[in-house]
Amino acid sequence: MEGMLDRLRLSWGREGKMLCVGLDPDTERLPGCVKGEERPLFAFSRAIVDATADLVCAFKPQAAYFHAAAAESELAETIAYIKERYPHLVVILDAKRGDIGATARQYALEAFVRYGADAVTVNPYMGGDTVEPFAQYRDRGVFLICRTSNPSSGDLQELATGEAGRPLFEEVARLATGRWNANRNIGLVVGAPYPSDLGRVRRLAPEAPILVPGIGAQGGDLNAVLREGCDVAGAGLLINVSRDIIFAGDGPDFADRARVAAEEYAAAIRKAVEAGGRDNEMGSESRS
Amino acid sequence: MEGMLDRLRLSWGREGKMLCVGLDPDTERLPGCVKGEERPLFAFSRAIVDATADLVCAFKPQAAYFHAAAAESELAETIAYIKERYPHLVVILDAKRGDIGATARQYALEAFVRYGADAVTVNPYMGGDTVEPFAQYRDRGVFLICRTSNPSSGDLQELATGEAGRPLFEEVARLATGRWNANRNIGLVVGAPYPSDLGRVRRLAPEAPILVPGIGAQGGDLNAVLREGCDVAGAGLLINVSRDIIFAGDGPDFADRARVAAEEYAAAIRKAVEAGGRDNEMGSESRS
Repeated sequence: MEGMLDRLRLSWGREGKMLCVGLDPDTERLPGCVKGEERPLFAFSRAIVDATADLVCAFKPQAAYFHAAAAESELAETIAYIKERYPHLVVILDAKRGDIGATARQYALEAFVRYGADAVTVNPYMGGDTVEPFAQYRDRGVFLICRTSNPSSGDLQELATGEAGRPLFEEVARLATGRWNANRNIGLVVGAPYPSDLGRVRRLAPEAPILVPGIGAQGGDLNAVLREGCDVAGAGLLINVSRDIIFAGDGPDFADRARVAAEEYAAAIRKAVEAGGRDNEMGSESRS
Repeated sequence: MEGMLDRLRLSWGREGKMLCVGLDPDTERLPGCVKGEERPLFAFSRAIVDATADLVCAFKPQAAYFHAAAAESELAETIAYIKERYPHLVVILDAKRGDIGATARQYALEAFVRYGADAVTVNPYMGGDTVEPFAQYRDRGVFLICRTSNPSSGDLQELATGEAGRPLFEEVARLATGRWNANRNIGLVVGAPYPSDLGRVRRLAPEAPILVPGIGAQGGDLNAVLREGCDVAGAGLLINVSRDIIFAGDGPDFADRARVAAEEYAAAIRKAVEAGGRDNEMGSESRS
């Protein structure tokens, strides 16, 4: 099977799909009809996956919800289910791991061997030798936390660094496309609420896949994200939406409601790409 | 029961204990006699705990090893065992979590409710509102990653920031003792290989507990660590040693061997504290 990036490029180029659905199975928000199931986090995630798989390039299960519920086996089952049924899609384990070399190797085993994820989110604060144990899996991907969508993300990420006074997140983008990227499998995470920062990251990292959380519940502007974040082919983004899709309904029809919401986001992304595409390079159909 | 800091201060003040034993049950390095057990990570960790509990102020189980081995239940059992048998000790879950608010709350649930840890290591890169969901547990502790012991820790942590050109790790220390520390339960992680940086952090954070990895296998100098890192009371540190103690032997006597190694470290710490108190540098020859 192709590596993670090849599969993403197929989804982007052939089908124009940049939507990523975040699987955040918060036990307090699960629909009543799922709560009674023996394995509720898996039952919920599977239903969302089946309802939206044809609309997305990736799914992003959020490890924290499975950890808090002592449901690691349901996380494993969810990822295995996606990989069996939808092998052309990419699974990003959102775990934001990061530790020194020997320990990072254990986290890489967790993400890539135990769970079989195609990619994992990693925190860059500890430096290059903490990224390498993940990046050495050449057919997998590493999404480095760069500029996040939360209100106080600027506490450190916006600090001016070095003589040029570049913000810290730009330094991360620079390292992630340079010295740290020996295997060319490092992407970045940049939150939708900061589209101009997304543009700066895109200029520093013209070829990196960029995972963009913060659309929807967190209020990011889709048009600005597409305008600032797309690569020269009009693609290169994984636009993540979690709660607005997966909790669109809480009744027995929750999966249908999730599909309707996902269709709306997919259509809005297509429309924003077309709108953006008129004033720069044409279509995204020539990639793959 | 007293909060985490109260218990640490009892161990430091009454008994002069600053050793922390890191529980890193690497399945590839477990003694043969343990590998055959039904729950080998727990069996190993329990034996180390029983052999060293009277010498330490804290144990630090490393989540990555349990995750990689799909052994979360053994991590829970290890922590429950320590808390039942040695309730005066502190358990720091070394998980280096970090995520936006809603997700960080799930990680806090994982650490403090599911596992019942007294403290957790947290990555500060995403800013104050990602620290708060952990710090809001007032009787627990948060150890923020500040200056780590790995070779490339300087990639970001040493970058000069702001007009004053202070390295990034100092900014973390400043925030961790100021704006982020509303509940006065934030400590810091500073690696032993950089004792002068430890001294800078101590001056910025005179009262913070500081967890110091990197003694032993990573080669940090104990005398320099104590000289630079102790607070005004000659305490305030959790000197972590993992592999040099837990893998001191690999035969059936591995726990006895671990105890001997732990005794040597505990004695070396006492000696270094006394040497520091007289304001001179005794040799480091006692360092096993």
